[in-house]
Amino acid sequence: MSKKFLVGIDIGGTSIKMAVFEDDGTIIDKWEIPTNKDNQGVSIPGDIWTSLENKLKEHSIDPKEVQGMGVGAPGFIDSDTGSIYEAVNIGWKKNFDLGKQLQALSGLPVFVDNDANLAALGENWKGAGNLAENLIAITIGTGVGGGIITNGQVVNGSNGTAGEIGHIMVEADGYACNCGRKGCLETVTSATGMVRQAKEKLKDNPNSLLKTPLEKNGDLTTKDIFDAAKEGDAFSISIIERVADVLGLAIANVATIVNPSKIVIGGGVSKAGDQLLIPLRKAFDSFCLPRISEACEFRIAQLGNDAGVVGAAYLVKQKLS
Amino acid sequence: MSKKFLVGIDIGGTSIKMAVFEDDGTIIDKWEIPTNKDNQGVSIPGDIWTSLENKLKEHSIDPKEVQGMGVGAPGFIDSDTGSIYEAVNIGWKKNFDLGKQLQALSGLPVFVDNDANLAALGENWKGAGNLAENLIAITIGTGVGGGIITNGQVVNGSNGTAGEIGHIMVEADGYACNCGRKGCLETVTSATGMVRQAKEKLKDNPNSLLKTPLEKNGDLTTKDIFDAAKEGDAFSISIIERVADVLGLAIANVATIVNPSKIVIGGGVSKAGDQLLIPLRKAFDSFCLPRISEACEFRIAQLGNDAGVVGAAYLVKQKLS
Repeated sequence: MSKKFLVGIDIGGTSIKMAVFEDDGTIIDKWEIPTNKDNQGVSIPGDIWTSLENKLKEHSIDPKEVQGMGVGAPGFIDSDTGSIYEAVNIGWKKNFDLGKQLQALSGLPVFVDNDANLAALGENWKGAGNLAENLIAITIGTGVGGGIITNGQVVNGSNGTAGEIGHIMVEADGYACNCGRKGCLETVTSATGMVRQAKEKLKDNPNSLLKTPLEKNGDLTTKDIFDAAKEGDAFSISIIERVADVLGLAIANVATIVNPSKIVIGGGVSKAGDQLLIPLRKAFDSFCLPRISEACEFRIAQLGNDAGVVGAAYLVKQKLS
Repeated sequence: MSKKFLVGIDIGGTSIKMAVFEDDGTIIDKWEIPTNKDNQGVSIPGDIWTSLENKLKEHSIDPKEVQGMGVGAPGFIDSDTGSIYEAVNIGWKKNFDLGKQLQALSGLPVFVDNDANLAALGENWKGAGNLAENLIAITIGTGVGGGIITNGQVVNGSNGTAGEIGHIMVEADGYACNCGRKGCLETVTSATGMVRQAKEKLKDNPNSLLKTPLEKNGDLTTKDIFDAAKEGDAFSISIIERVADVLGLAIANVATIVNPSKIVIGGGVSKAGDQLLIPLRKAFDSFCLPRISEACEFRIAQLGNDAGVVGAAYLVKQKLS
């Protein structure tokens, strides 16, 4: 029986995304199940396998036709053993052996990696990456996440903490970060950071167009900031320029290490498209060795929420090749 | 005939270091020949092969017993083809096909990489690295060089410019760098940078112990600075602290990407040992995610000038495995 299918799973704090693929990455089916965090997430492996087994039956796929299962999870992961050192958002305690449990349930090869790393791998396979050998992926949303690919492989690091671009320190005396330190990149350039800067400095910029959405909705979004900038609002433009400047320097320094051919920007803030990419590229070029800048292209991520399951499926291909 | 030998070659601006190894890395012989830069370095491949052929004869080694030849060169290298994009110090013009020429002369598999990358690989095999899967190597001398290993492999990047740690930008309005930009790490933390800071600020510190060696020798060295610091010279201590601070932040940010188990510091300035490592580690820890800091160890490089040939030999093992 030829093993022609791949399974990709992306475990999040609210839902678990699952998909079955042909070997070439064509999606046969994708669906979600809720993440049951009761009892420190103990039922999650069983929930995944039950749902997958049913779905395979529905498509008349024998589990023996599946090459393996790739799984992305938030937190720090030992990708050699598939054990999760820690994943606070899910409730898993230290060293939850997700990989082993899924393997025992399914009888399939199981490969586990960090969700941001697998999103990078997914974009590299079927999205904006085009199978780059060296790629930096950055997700700008509530926080700033990252995934790094060198020599075609995800970089996990020695304890699953590689690619933590959001925690590059950019201001020694900056804002408090969720990680307990100060001045991490994400305090300035995440959606949260952008909105906080706008709200804090709005009183010094009483004529800004941002007053209207703030008064109307009681809060601001990055979309409000990009929209106001489009209307020529100088204050909003200054916030975007600062973000582009700080992010451009941080990415330039990462590129000085990785020398990527592609830099893929995803997450909610990336929806701003060229409004973000143009000033970001300008700042990046000013901070980067010309030889590194010349070799790389900035792209907006293409797969959205599917990047994780696509990358998980590709991980299986890669590990079994 | 069993292929039990490895050849490592390290091409520098003044001399070419060469060595023949057993498969386990034991050095059978090592020697140097001068680098003939006449006519844009055209005779270098022939010089290397003539010298190697003679040496193999001397040791009664048939070239057929050699697994392959690893070659390190300064500059930007296409490690897939063994072609040198550019190596100003040697005189090679654009796209000098070093790998192909050596292969044609020797009939052996030839693998070429950047010299700093191979020094990192050498330290990882037989020096301070202990075969780390993820390692950062930094050489602090006239400039600041670097080599990065992820997933056990050297990172070359998309056009041979990865690991250029010395060109991480640390001060947007800093000193002019050899690369044509301003404020690169090496302008502050190289030996050249340290000595320049000391000489410039010495007039504001007339009681510093550094006056004596400067008056005696007409110049300063980093050894003078470390020696004066040992005697309690506050000015020299302040220079070392600033270097540790700037270097510690830059390495912390690289470690945030790579999550290494080892950080190996080499080059002339590393001879200061704990006088550098202790303040450097303190600064690094203050800038780094605790999880990343906990996972990594700082070590002084152990192989000195042999790192390049050892890494070149290991590259052969790795590529043929």
